[in-house]
Amino acid sequence: MDDKAAGSILCFGEVLLRLSAPVGRRLANSSSLEVHVGGAEANVAAVLAQLGHDVEMLSVLPQSGLGDLCLGELRRVGVGTAKVRRSDGRMGIYFFEAAPGAGSVEYDREQSAFAHNADQFDWAALASVSRWFHLSGINVALGGKPADAARTAAEAMAEAGVPVSFDVNHRASLWEGRSDKGIVPLITAATALLASPQDISRILQTEFANGALAVQAVLERFERLEVVAWTRRLNDGDRQSLSASVVTRSEQHETAPAPLGQVSDRIGSGDAFAGAIIDGLLRGQGAAESARQGLAAAVMKHAIAGDQWIGTRAELEAFDPFGESDVRR
Amino acid sequence: MDDKAAGSILCFGEVLLRLSAPVGRRLANSSSLEVHVGGAEANVAAVLAQLGHDVEMLSVLPQSGLGDLCLGELRRVGVGTAKVRRSDGRMGIYFFEAAPGAGSVEYDREQSAFAHNADQFDWAALASVSRWFHLSGINVALGGKPADAARTAAEAMAEAGVPVSFDVNHRASLWEGRSDKGIVPLITAATALLASPQDISRILQTEFANGALAVQAVLERFERLEVVAWTRRLNDGDRQSLSASVVTRSEQHETAPAPLGQVSDRIGSGDAFAGAIIDGLLRGQGAAESARQGLAAAVMKHAIAGDQWIGTRAELEAFDPFGESDVRR
Amino acid sequence: MDDKAAGSILCFGEVLLRLSAPVGRRLANSSSLEVHVGGAEANVAAVLAQLGHDVEMLSVLPQSGLGDLCLGELRRVGVGTAKVRRSDGRMGIYFFEAAPGAGSVEYDREQSAFAHNADQFDWAALASVSRWFHLSGINVALGGKPADAARTAAEAMAEAGVPVSFDVNHRASLWEGRSDKGIVPLITAATALLASPQDISRILQTEFANGALAVQAVLERFERLEVVAWTRRLNDGDRQSLSASVVTRSEQHETAPAPLGQVSDRIGSGDAFAGAIIDGLLRGQGAAESARQGLAAAVMKHAIAGDQWIGTRAELEAFDPFGESDVRR
Amino acid sequence: MDDKAAGSILCFGEVLLRLSAPVGRRLANSSSLEVHVGGAEANVAAVLAQLGHDVEMLSVLPQSGLGDLCLGELRRVGVGTAKVRRSDGRMGIYFFEAAPGAGSVEYDREQSAFAHNADQFDWAALASVSRWFHLSGINVALGGKPADAARTAAEAMAEAGVPVSFDVNHRASLWEGRSDKGIVPLITAATALLASPQDISRILQTEFANGALAVQAVLERFERLEVVAWTRRLNDGDRQSLSASVVTRSEQHETAPAPLGQVSDRIGSGDAFAGAIIDGLLRGQGAAESARQGLAAAVMKHAIAGDQWIGTRAELEAFDPFGESDVRR
Amino acid sequence: MDDKAAGSILCFGEVLLRLSAPVGRRLANSSSLEVHVGGAEANVAAVLAQLGHDVEMLSVLPQSGLGDLCLGELRRVGVGTAKVRRSDGRMGIYFFEAAPGAGSVEYDREQSAFAHNADQFDWAALASVSRWFHLSGINVALGGKPADAARTAAEAMAEAGVPVSFDVNHRASLWEGRSDKGIVPLITAATALLASPQDISRILQTEFANGALAVQAVLERFERLEVVAWTRRLNDGDRQSLSASVVTRSEQHETAPAPLGQVSDRIGSGDAFAGAIIDGLLRGQGAAESARQGLAAAVMKHAIAGDQWIGTRAELEAFDPFGESDVRR
Amino acid sequence: MDDKAAGSILCFGEVLLRLSAPVGRRLANSSSLEVHVGGAEANVAAVLAQLGHDVEMLSVLPQSGLGDLCLGELRRVGVGTAKVRRSDGRMGIYFFEAAPGAGSVEYDREQSAFAHNADQFDWAALASVSRWFHLSGINVALGGKPADAARTAAEAMAEAGVPVSFDVNHRASLWEGRSDKGIVPLITAATALLASPQDISRILQTEFANGALAVQAVLERFERLEVVAWTRRLNDGDRQSLSASVVTRSEQHETAPAPLGQVSDRIGSGDAFAGAIIDGLLRGQGAAESARQGLAAAVMKHAIAGDQWIGTRAELEAFDPFGESDVRR
Repeated sequence: MDDKAAGSILCFGEVLLRLSAPVGRRLANSSSLEVHVGGAEANVAAVLAQLGHDVEMLSVLPQSGLGDLCLGELRRVGVGTAKVRRSDGRMGIYFFEAAPGAGSVEYDREQSAFAHNADQFDWAALASVSRWFHLSGINVALGGKPADAARTAAEAMAEAGVPVSFDVNHRASLWEGRSDKGIVPLITAATALLASPQDISRILQTEFANGALAVQAVLERFERLEVVAWTRRLNDGDRQSLSASVVTRSEQHETAPAPLGQVSDRIGSGDAFAGAIIDGLLRGQGAAESARQGLAAAVMKHAIAGDQWIGTRAELEAFDPFGESDVRR
Repeated sequence: MDDKAAGSILCFGEVLLRLSAPVGRRLANSSSLEVHVGGAEANVAAVLAQLGHDVEMLSVLPQSGLGDLCLGELRRVGVGTAKVRRSDGRMGIYFFEAAPGAGSVEYDREQSAFAHNADQFDWAALASVSRWFHLSGINVALGGKPADAARTAAEAMAEAGVPVSFDVNHRASLWEGRSDKGIVPLITAATALLASPQDISRILQTEFANGALAVQAVLERFERLEVVAWTRRLNDGDRQSLSASVVTRSEQHETAPAPLGQVSDRIGSGDAFAGAIIDGLLRGQGAAESARQGLAAAVMKHAIAGDQWIGTRAELEAFDPFGESDVRR
Repeated sequence: MDDKAAGSILCFGEVLLRLSAPVGRRLANSSSLEVHVGGAEANVAAVLAQLGHDVEMLSVLPQSGLGDLCLGELRRVGVGTAKVRRSDGRMGIYFFEAAPGAGSVEYDREQSAFAHNADQFDWAALASVSRWFHLSGINVALGGKPADAARTAAEAMAEAGVPVSFDVNHRASLWEGRSDKGIVPLITAATALLASPQDISRILQTEFANGALAVQAVLERFERLEVVAWTRRLNDGDRQSLSASVVTRSEQHETAPAPLGQVSDRIGSGDAFAGAIIDGLLRGQGAAESARQGLAAAVMKHAIAGDQWIGTRAELEAFDPFGESDVRR
Repeated sequence: MDDKAAGSILCFGEVLLRLSAPVGRRLANSSSLEVHVGGAEANVAAVLAQLGHDVEMLSVLPQSGLGDLCLGELRRVGVGTAKVRRSDGRMGIYFFEAAPGAGSVEYDREQSAFAHNADQFDWAALASVSRWFHLSGINVALGGKPADAARTAAEAMAEAGVPVSFDVNHRASLWEGRSDKGIVPLITAATALLASPQDISRILQTEFANGALAVQAVLERFERLEVVAWTRRLNDGDRQSLSASVVTRSEQHETAPAPLGQVSDRIGSGDAFAGAIIDGLLRGQGAAESARQGLAAAVMKHAIAGDQWIGTRAELEAFDPFGESDVRR
Repeated sequence: MDDKAAGSILCFGEVLLRLSAPVGRRLANSSSLEVHVGGAEANVAAVLAQLGHDVEMLSVLPQSGLGDLCLGELRRVGVGTAKVRRSDGRMGIYFFEAAPGAGSVEYDREQSAFAHNADQFDWAALASVSRWFHLSGINVALGGKPADAARTAAEAMAEAGVPVSFDVNHRASLWEGRSDKGIVPLITAATALLASPQDISRILQTEFANGALAVQAVLERFERLEVVAWTRRLNDGDRQSLSASVVTRSEQHETAPAPLGQVSDRIGSGDAFAGAIIDGLLRGQGAAESARQGLAAAVMKHAIAGDQWIGTRAELEAFDPFGESDVRR
Repeated sequence: MDDKAAGSILCFGEVLLRLSAPVGRRLANSSSLEVHVGGAEANVAAVLAQLGHDVEMLSVLPQSGLGDLCLGELRRVGVGTAKVRRSDGRMGIYFFEAAPGAGSVEYDREQSAFAHNADQFDWAALASVSRWFHLSGINVALGGKPADAARTAAEAMAEAGVPVSFDVNHRASLWEGRSDKGIVPLITAATALLASPQDISRILQTEFANGALAVQAVLERFERLEVVAWTRRLNDGDRQSLSASVVTRSEQHETAPAPLGQVSDRIGSGDAFAGAIIDGLLRGQGAAESARQGLAAAVMKHAIAGDQWIGTRAELEAFDPFGESDVRR
């Protein structure tokens, strides 16, 4: 891969510590919690680094053992941490329990080192060493410095001609009923948008007759946008499947729904999808190939504990989300 | 909730220590066992206490570390233990392995503190401080003092006008082929009966043309009875679903079958159902609302390890057993 | 024990969630964290409840799964939680790693539900139902509402004639170099003081020629004070031992140092000591008997994981901190 | 069972140590590995020993803690180890991760004690104390001494009139594209062949119009052969089921597909099938009964962690792969 | 080793399931229990089997998953189980917590399969195939059938000329203050006695001026006795050490005290000692060599979790209880 | 730190996967193994990277999940892996059990990717980007390509004027009685030697009257050598302590022995010492300061599970190996 000449992929957002109840336990009756590192943009960074790209995380972590833990976990999957800042302030945490239902999240991220120091980056300088810039709507939902920084950063990147991928990443509890139309400026700066027709409809505050029209509308309105991609989760009783869609200005593709089987952990499957789509764009994949790769990453993620897809390019390419199940040996 | 004025809910039965093989292990090759506290009536008590009711357990536990463990676990979910007696004798245990099949139970409850001392309660005095009385057929199946005490207690409560819920809770190995018609006196005292048409048919030793007739017969024969409720488990290959039925003297409702998805632990789902039904009765819910709440508790329980439903009223009300799966965040 | 007639023991302070790295792990490389519930006053409450006293916790917990967890754990050891308030705000957490050295703590307790709502108690009303009141200097160190509430509470209790035990519980990182002389009003209200001569010297900002003089000084200055008690940790290379001292207005006793052996978890040993001392005072033990009981609880605690002493009165009485080691069977 | 008079069942092949990533983990991010003992022939031996047969393992293990571990685990399930040789050389290991997909295996078995010393057995002497001989195609795939020994052994047994069961056990990575027709001599010696029509077609390098013709062809060509048996795995989306087929010279039976439900561990299900089939042959079961028993063992195995079926004859007989799911108690 | 010609070593006693609280946990707050298999005679059998002797366990286990577990664990360490009987009745269990202090045991062994069926052995027949017979005083302490069987067995063995080793194994809670002089007939039959001077004094109900006189007295009174052996535990603060003594009719040896270091699990160290002493007697070791080997086994055991010494003869011979600590690599 | 200008620290050696038995278990009865990454040079690299240096590992890892695991773990502690080569061949493994005694290691490192491909580095080119070069005698002990490469590398570095640290790291089982005088050329190239007087005596095959003379002799004979450093382990019964010595051409210092307390894992303490010594040399520390820092790292390591010291420079500086034990909070 020759992308190093062209600078690094930069991912900007909060790195979160995830503490989750063991399988079958509620938080209320857990006697241990499993540790994972997450955060939407960090998860995308993890995919891209494992696929061989030169990726740097842009974030702020506290000067503490928990901060060290997160830094180490990012490095473990190959994400560069030289640009991560350390500061006072607390570690953003979220507590997760998988059951009952599809699970629930308790955020404990207020007053975090990131929330207090997200404005400490020199975006013009960063744009000059960036090959690609990725961020998500969670920054905007957090408000304050993260939201401001996200907008400033995206605009600086767009101005410098750096491709920008933006994942809407809607989290109801973070928006608490506020409209998320504040993310429109981010879409304006984006070259790639990770958003479903429902997301588009909600953000544009417009009803569309069908999903295709929503995607068409967003492509028409936002000139820099080259691609829109999303996944769709289908429930048939308790069997779930997932399909992926990629629409560019010249082609569109929706995969068949792939069965998810026994789900180990669905957190981060959207980020796995986003990472694989960005990799496809960086490598010039067409819509069909890209949708399939994104789907493969998302389906694989459901079997992997933690927020991050763990794998190699060879495994991603070999994985057939529609294939016969068989042990490889 | 203003139920404290009217006395406590009393649940009478044996508290059992459950020791279960880890997932994928048989008892025969386990190197550790997971500890849970169970017992049908304790499980019902746990639901009611977590839903905010004032609940007291009536049981006998040995004066030992294991007895302390059980007492502590009851208190942890909010069940009052001031009326639990401590004595010599052993702790009733059951060993559980989840696989293969739907799992199996090895009882090791003979000579327990409860079996030897179940007669140490002053039922008339207890009736005077009781708002509701719950017990199950396991007491009767155990024979001896527990069976005698169960009958005495139910009759004392009925005489004092205390509502009595009775869960048949048929356990083949405990009855060992004996007829369980000995539980007829308990049904006589009951205002609420947790029993399926099959249970009714077996106990009354009568064949009915269909389930509705069985329920009608039991309501006709037992004057104190106001409600009969049960769940039905459906298998389609390896996909399971559960429906709930509630029949009163004036209305009846059967829910649609709700898919169970990946089951973590189905032990105690009937008790979760019973607890939620009793809560509905205490709060004047109609048959449909009650059936749905009971179903929700039972479905939730399948995702929770251990014998007891763990949750809050807010969670129970928010849980939709037929809903789209999505992580709450 | 007939203490219920005289009201409950009330313990006021923050309940903390402790998340600790597994043995041999640093926080920075942990893949799971063990869950315990702590907080100095909660730990004292746990001892007293297990010894059979009627104890109520006065604290504020968030309305969340983690808050439910803490509430449940308090109930498990028998502490009453009817007076615990639930509110918005986060759960106070501390992260612990046992090695290297004697371990270290990372506090993450700012903006907690307790910090924001510690003023929500009606101290006059509580004084009227209180048999004993316990609190520690951590409330004062936290500043703001907890500090104000601690002072108000202690004074209200003193005015109402309720005995007050106060544990200085010095935490360097919480005081951050500030003088802790602000706790003088608490000592003024106290009938029992848990503080070492070094604590006294630091708080009174006075050098004493020896420890006995420091204790004498504090007894002279604070009229309500009836007893001062503390432990002393001795290191001989890597072998540790602990001695206990109790000084009243009429007698004083220092135990011999008891060897600590293999230490599992020393957090909370001071609280175990405090709880056992308070029990001794409630039961009219003399200085020697009380010191020995306090020492026994503190030594036992070193072998028990988590912040709380776990045991029964019978075990406490049977435990000989100087005895020959032998398996009881 | 009176089979001891007639000598032991001998199972010849490599015993492997399996180290597997925890559920939801990839090898690349595991912080612990679970230990199981496997090897196709050892797994068959484990089934037969647990069903009450006198079974001896013929293998070579290193003189090391890992070798001791394997020996102990074999004994634990009742397999005789008196004929296992110990030598220098390493322990054959395979690393397993269950996800994503159906899992994958990394072999690390080169230079093993078995590979270097598989020729140290006196087959003529062993034939004289053998009631039955079992081996699999993995020996042949390994090449070198194991392949030579397998052929020599099978021929010696055939010559001595000992029944021989041979499981093709195709492993793509072991054959690495080489043709596996080298196992023809083993089939020549076999009285029972565990192979699917696809296996037969590949080995005989012949296309057949349908599976029945393949089986017919193999029965025609190999005179000693009395029975051919195999399982078929069916995928309907992410729901799997398994059917079993047994064909003898006089009858044939294929079971309906049995649903597999939540799969804990499918490794070794083919060996469980083989073991149960061999037991059926030893006890004179007909094709239908044998197929059903084989299917029951294979389905049960999917719920059991590790390579080996764990159970008793009573459990195998009681298990209904098509039955209603219910907890046995 | 040529001892197979001369029959097996037979060990008679109850096999117990041990369920222990995790490190740092009390039983009262354990959420899992670790599974080990114990029983004094089974532990001795385990040592002897691992040292290469042909050993058969004589015991009775229930027909259950727990019984299967015990049987498998015995086989794992090489103990023969062909003579173990299976019956109705429960599994004898003991619950163990290691802290605080040196740990404590809760027995739950009444009504066990062994207690009800210990009389089902044909001692005369067994004597004819026995090279050595081992049992402990626990059988006698249990009373009833085990006590009767122990006496009958020992006398049958003595009559047949089989060497008998008898370990007093005093357990205060089993004797509950009863005198244990009832074990005198067992000492009469014994050729080797595992008992300390204190044991001897208590059993003979005689005060001796010193330990040497006690040992001399027992050797004088019991003609069949050839050797007496015991260990002595020394506490210096929290540092423990252990010495071993062996006295025969012609020589005597007491080792220096060996430091125990960090103790993982001291249960079964006496049985490890007994097993190694018996091995020494079988191989004709002198008192000094035998004492040292017994000490080595006992010291090693303290570092091994569970009731049984785990190791090989090579390791036992290489282990120097007084040696410099160094990692072997 | 401005050391990046001057190139990276390069560490050359085999990265090993360590699989260790859980506490209290032997390998022979483990049901899981803990995963750590080790290798003497990788452990040194880990210390230096965590102290803030720019460190690159020079090694060869297999193209497999286990190889990925090692690579990720190196990155996690900050070690650069860009120069690590991937190849066919197996992963070098060692199996570890901590007890009994000080633990033992079973190597399973033959035929590893490193052993087969250690010659694939261009040492002249590497010397030009190297600020410091570290390696150990294990390379030489392995023989073949690693031994040749070690010699070639050290000589190339010496010729290019790169400082070279060499740790003798004697492993008896690797040298299997062969003389290790073959490491003389490595000492010739070294500027810093990690070796005890005993090591020096063995390598130079010369008896010295005392340790000081041995160190003097090695400094005299090897001109490039500037410093010799080692630790000494002292046993007093079961209490261990450690002292550190540093000798340069102008000064020498031996610390007092520091108590080790409860040891969690002593593997890698020598590497922690080496890393801290090299850091001291890079920063111009004198002998006393350097010895103390090395001792601190080594003592801290004993409390940390796994082969690698985990910490920060701030923690290393704050750690007092002779200090009073107290929880930092």
